[in-house]
Amino acid sequence: MSLRNLSINLATVRQQYNLAQAVDACLAQGITSIAPWRDQIHETGLAEAAEIIRSNQMRVTGLCRGGMFPASDRGGLAAAVEDNKRAIDEAAAIGADCLVMVVGGLPKGSRDISAAREMVVDGLAAILPHARAIRMPIAIEPLHPMYAADRACINTLEHALDVCELLGDGVGVAIDAYHVWWDPKLREQIVRAGASNRILAHHICDWLVPTRDLLLDRGMMGDGVIDLRSIRRTIVEAGYDGPQEVEIFSSENWWKRPGEEVLATCIERFHEVCELHEKSFQER
Amino acid sequence: MSLRNLSINLATVRQQYNLAQAVDACLAQGITSIAPWRDQIHETGLAEAAEIIRSNQMRVTGLCRGGMFPASDRGGLAAAVEDNKRAIDEAAAIGADCLVMVVGGLPKGSRDISAAREMVVDGLAAILPHARAIRMPIAIEPLHPMYAADRACINTLEHALDVCELLGDGVGVAIDAYHVWWDPKLREQIVRAGASNRILAHHICDWLVPTRDLLLDRGMMGDGVIDLRSIRRTIVEAGYDGPQEVEIFSSENWWKRPGEEVLATCIERFHEVCELHEKSFQER
Repeated sequence: MSLRNLSINLATVRQQYNLAQAVDACLAQGITSIAPWRDQIHETGLAEAAEIIRSNQMRVTGLCRGGMFPASDRGGLAAAVEDNKRAIDEAAAIGADCLVMVVGGLPKGSRDISAAREMVVDGLAAILPHARAIRMPIAIEPLHPMYAADRACINTLEHALDVCELLGDGVGVAIDAYHVWWDPKLREQIVRAGASNRILAHHICDWLVPTRDLLLDRGMMGDGVIDLRSIRRTIVEAGYDGPQEVEIFSSENWWKRPGEEVLATCIERFHEVCELHEKSFQER
Repeated sequence: MSLRNLSINLATVRQQYNLAQAVDACLAQGITSIAPWRDQIHETGLAEAAEIIRSNQMRVTGLCRGGMFPASDRGGLAAAVEDNKRAIDEAAAIGADCLVMVVGGLPKGSRDISAAREMVVDGLAAILPHARAIRMPIAIEPLHPMYAADRACINTLEHALDVCELLGDGVGVAIDAYHVWWDPKLREQIVRAGASNRILAHHICDWLVPTRDLLLDRGMMGDGVIDLRSIRRTIVEAGYDGPQEVEIFSSENWWKRPGEEVLATCIERFHEVCELHEKSFQER
């Protein structure tokens, strides 16, 4: 069984490995796609990171993350725009498929989520010319509504696609099953995203019952309640057949286990509960 | 300043008071509306509970709660339907404005949220003839998406209203700011709910940053990020001017304080950040 369609978001093994170690550990188990975070790239150094990725022929399914636009004043927004332009350059330097956007929540002290959303649109509009110029796709990741206040005020796929249509070319969505699985409009919005070629990434993990922490208690695929294969089928039918990228924040479980065990479990569960087996939906 | 439009959901003081004590404590501070939970009614006894409420002329803005329909088999659903019919009778016995529905999440072991949603519609359809016969409005409460797995698989006002329209008369929505504040379609869906006279209750508390527990870390109005007055204005403009009902689950803070202090704070914050002051939006 091929691992061509499995990617490891390096947050999943952030406590175990730096970038070089993570690449080695992935390759040792046959995984050839990763998605690093900016802090991991900075720690290694951009040039060296790019060389590690290039020389090992790794596919980079996304760089995490740009975004965090809303600010208390225009200066703050301008600074976020500049930082996002640097992120675009970094994504290009490592050959990423896209730059993933966690757009940001409410500025400190604010209760005006509409204003925050306007700042997000303004910020994205300000960076898009640069992104288009160097052909780096921008992937808006709608985050679960429980992050609306402090991480991202774009919380549904429908809303993310509305923003994409407002902004035009060069911007699409990262669909993370953890953030959107609950949405009664999920299927229709995945179809909509596919029809406009805006699906840029597909992230997976699982929703645990109970969930003990809003941020750091995400589950391994198969340990929770998300019908990951069904969501995958919808995404493939909508036209996206790129890798499924495992992104698990798990301070009390997976971050405490040996990296090799985590990666082996990702592979096992990818085959068991994520990958499509039906002939008609065979992932190429 | 009148407290006519302030109601206390008795979950807010569940660790401090039983029903009789809660009624006394509310009246001592001028609060004349409450919303009890079924376990509080059962603890007191239905006849005595009804007498306490009647003799003190309390308004009951809702009985919490019916629902919890999805089950692993038809027998489980049938049992839920019978229990919900009893809840309707109890709501009638205490003269409640409505029976609030927390519809239920996924049955144990299930990953099929569509099937759970179908069971919810089936369950509601099964109880509605009885509810209509004794004129007890059924209020579907869309719960925050973080409860989709274990408490309620209706998670947006839009979805709740779609279900209402499917079911017809006798069913509406309870709009709890905590559950819906993040929704980019909130305003349009409140307007829609008002246009069909389906707003049956308005619950309030606040979203804390950070939120330390998915269930039991709700905030006092004013301590979080929700623009409660703005949501209230939209609800009043849409045609609902019933009480704002304070419902706070707070295991580490408000549940540990003296009940008198909690109620006094509810009153203070109701005036400060919830009640409408503009002449044109004066609550009657």
